Amino acid sequence: MSKIETHTISVLVDNKFGVLARVAGLFSGRGYNIMSLTVNETQDPTRSQMTIVTAGDETVIDQIDSQLSKLIDVIKVEDLTHRNFIERELALIKIHVTDDNKKSQIIQLVEIFEGKIVTVFKDEFGIEIAGRADKIDNFVTLLADFGEIKLARSGRVALSREKEFYTDLQSKS
Amino acid sequence: MSKIETHTISVLVDNKFGVLARVAGLFSGRGYNIMSLTVNETQDPTRSQMTIVTAGDETVIDQIDSQLSKLIDVIKVEDLTHRNFIERELALIKIHVTDDNKKSQIIQLVEIFEGKIVTVFKDEFGIEIAGRADKIDNFVTLLADFGEIKLARSGRVALSREKEFYTDLQSKS
Repeated sequence: MSKIETHTISVLVDNKFGVLARVAGLFSGRGYNIMSLTVNETQDPTRSQMTIVTAGDETVIDQIDSQLSKLIDVIKVEDLTHRNFIERELALIKIHVTDDNKKSQIIQLVEIFEGKIVTVFKDEFGIEIAGRADKIDNFVTLLADFGEIKLARSGRVALSREKEFYTDLQSKS
Repeated sequence: MSKIETHTISVLVDNKFGVLARVAGLFSGRGYNIMSLTVNETQDPTRSQMTIVTAGDETVIDQIDSQLSKLIDVIKVEDLTHRNFIERELALIKIHVTDDNKKSQIIQLVEIFEGKIVTVFKDEFGIEIAGRADKIDNFVTLLADFGEIKLARSGRVALSREKEFYTDLQSKS
């Protein structure tokens, strides 16, 4: 059996009723897993852009790519996985903390990870952080030690890079 | 007829096959529009969190909220619209530009909007920006004057705020 790999697939669609239901139905009907999905209108209001993260072996991924391309209102399918691409995610995190020492540690952690404190009220912070999925995983793990958190993540957004040998400027964390 | 309003709905679901297809199917089957949708696993790997942005008059929104709650594997539906909440979005933008003067103007624009240049290669920049949807709209509009852009947006992520009278710390732009 071939190796299970995570794939990031970018799908450009006509912004018509039911296109998301057809895409989601393709995955669920065939038992393919969706790890994350984002969909949003593009600059052209007649089109939407999806980024889907899924996992499977080579056969399954080939089937997904090919079946997605055949769906009505799907314009373009790009499997970015073995290409040069940028991938980022956004998270909003709410944390409840009463201890003043912990509060300053949290503020430092947010600075190190280049996040932003977007709301503050007595014993609660609202934090915004963007970056690679593994950076956000680390941040959330570290933050969870300080108090109860509530989390909303965007799922991954990705863009292919036309040229090879790009520099991907790493975030500090 | 009552007023058409944009609503942000947060949906916590069991992370089971087909739950996204059921949610998307509910919207398309009844002709409700989805403006953006994000879905991602939570810290608890058995659960996923969706943020859906939709528009409709009061009757339609009431129907959406109530029908979502009745779906299998849907644990909790929160319509955040008339509550205190934080809403953010992430965009990745690729821009092609050859003129050196334009390049420095782009770098300044990225600084003003608190974005990040995440890749660079000869005549192309890759930019990451997070913030409210209207801030990202503005940034993209300004950037598009400098050259051809390619855009991937995450759709909105939202978190309710338990307490009233929060300070929402504005971004500079």
